[in-house]
Amino acid sequence: MFACPIPAPDPHRIRLAHGGGGELTGRLIEEIFLPAFGTGSHPLHDSSVVSLPQGNIAVTTDSFVIHPLEFSGGDIGSLAVHGTVNDLAMSGARPLYLTAGFILEEGLDTAILSRIARSMGQAARQAGITIIAGDTKVVEKGKGDGIYINTSGIGIIEHSQTIAPTAIREGDTILVSGDIGRHGITIMSARAGIDLQTDLQSDSSNLWPSVETLLQNGIAIHCLRDITRGGLSMTLNELAETSGTTILLDETSIPVCDAVRSACDLLGLDILQTACEGRYIAIVPEKQAQQTLLALQRHNPAAAKIGTVIPLGTAPLLIDGLLGVRRILSKPYGEQLPRIC
Amino acid sequence: MFACPIPAPDPHRIRLAHGGGGELTGRLIEEIFLPAFGTGSHPLHDSSVVSLPQGNIAVTTDSFVIHPLEFSGGDIGSLAVHGTVNDLAMSGARPLYLTAGFILEEGLDTAILSRIARSMGQAARQAGITIIAGDTKVVEKGKGDGIYINTSGIGIIEHSQTIAPTAIREGDTILVSGDIGRHGITIMSARAGIDLQTDLQSDSSNLWPSVETLLQNGIAIHCLRDITRGGLSMTLNELAETSGTTILLDETSIPVCDAVRSACDLLGLDILQTACEGRYIAIVPEKQAQQTLLALQRHNPAAAKIGTVIPLGTAPLLIDGLLGVRRILSKPYGEQLPRIC
Repeated sequence: MFACPIPAPDPHRIRLAHGGGGELTGRLIEEIFLPAFGTGSHPLHDSSVVSLPQGNIAVTTDSFVIHPLEFSGGDIGSLAVHGTVNDLAMSGARPLYLTAGFILEEGLDTAILSRIARSMGQAARQAGITIIAGDTKVVEKGKGDGIYINTSGIGIIEHSQTIAPTAIREGDTILVSGDIGRHGITIMSARAGIDLQTDLQSDSSNLWPSVETLLQNGIAIHCLRDITRGGLSMTLNELAETSGTTILLDETSIPVCDAVRSACDLLGLDILQTACEGRYIAIVPEKQAQQTLLALQRHNPAAAKIGTVIPLGTAPLLIDGLLGVRRILSKPYGEQLPRIC
Repeated sequence: MFACPIPAPDPHRIRLAHGGGGELTGRLIEEIFLPAFGTGSHPLHDSSVVSLPQGNIAVTTDSFVIHPLEFSGGDIGSLAVHGTVNDLAMSGARPLYLTAGFILEEGLDTAILSRIARSMGQAARQAGITIIAGDTKVVEKGKGDGIYINTSGIGIIEHSQTIAPTAIREGDTILVSGDIGRHGITIMSARAGIDLQTDLQSDSSNLWPSVETLLQNGIAIHCLRDITRGGLSMTLNELAETSGTTILLDETSIPVCDAVRSACDLLGLDILQTACEGRYIAIVPEKQAQQTLLALQRHNPAAAKIGTVIPLGTAPLLIDGLLGVRRILSKPYGEQLPRIC
């Protein structure tokens, strides 16, 4: 008699069959996703039925392909929650529901998937958002990179303000909710294998509590935008272009922590193009600027007024530099480094 | 003087910078996605604000990693619309809004992306659904496989029925909306490079019009479920398990076209585990079975009554075979072939 040895599959690695919609997919859901996402989540099904209060809703989607999967201050799981929650918050919407779509690479260590799912569940609970639908696909080794996550979000708009680039007016004040660049520098230094000898962490976080404070304080918010890919340069160029104005920044007032500033010098990076994942721009009427600043500083003491909206000038985005010279800040062409989120 | 020749990037290939959120991302949106998705779409932004009528909504998410990207009867773009629309329809929800998240592989031919985006736009218009938010990421060559798409959907529930596995009752009739297995066999033969010498096409299609007819005809629908990964075996095993009943199938009544039957014989595949992307199971009270059948046949003449819900027996899913022998149909462990959707 012959024994035909088929090696047993490693039970701690993701296999293609985990994405087949069969029994193995079910086990992944029951053993990893359900315990991680906790009570109130319904990730057993593609689809969920929920009720919403009447009113406008904000809907958003974002895919996350960040490398490395885990980094100082977060991982792809918490980032996928914060990123989508923040897109909702930027419409002034209270985040309510999240969907989670996973594309896993064959051979992925299930311990990593567990850690990331738990981190995702924790971030969702902290943000008061429920994961109501999920999906898992597996692709062959070499057709993915560990884990990609798509999150789509639904939020409810409880105010009657128009918060949009079209509401931006000349004379408005530009504020930033905290110091910039921590996320970008954290990822870049992890990727480059550089130990910056600091305790620098990603700024990835939920921005809704800060936005809620502005709304509760009766600020007539004209526009909100989180600073992500392309950094401050990209964010403000887009806002100025869409609103048909020019934004004038004061470089000395832009908050940057020492570790980030040193790292930018060392790595030859432009801090104004460096990504954040937990900072946003608020554009408000000048007369409420001080009140807005105080509200922002309750959530982050580094929040600052950094510029003004002026009539359309030579370019959408201008900056008065450290030595008093005014220059144009153009839109980044691509990105300093791919896969930052 | 030296010339330092840097080869110009191929303008017809996706580059990492296309995912950077900068100017190149903007061009991708303006030159490819906006024209493809058409008027009424808002894929310029991560986030959109929409109003919904009061009531319950269905929310769903699905990622699509199908290989090959284009196949007879569809492509990953139309499939990503139909798949998510169908998940909504299975809750009895009228599909309204869709989000689209793309993960592109560096080096992808932009002509392929254009074709797939146009196909997606066309499928969305035909389904009466609006694409309201989008996102694009690019990963390095060898970290993806051309195009992965996540679609999340929102639909509105306009009826007051409970359409769910918990509503399944002993004595109910099981119907299928058309002949099974066309999608699975189309993809498998394309993947294996087998020319089946038939005009077999994927069954990928929008199931909402058929479900709407059932609702308009006053059918007291107990449960709906589209037949996807794992085929009829998977779908019915899950429904029987969740409802605590046994489902008894009559094998001779299950509609299968000749081309699919021959291909299953040739390839050694179990037709009962073969995927569809445009067929569903309807479970209704026996007294409305004939009326349901006629309604289903208005959309597909191959629709058929295929079984009955009986008290929980030896297994969740039983089948009376062609020769009269009753056997157990167990849940597929993984899948016949990965990346079928």
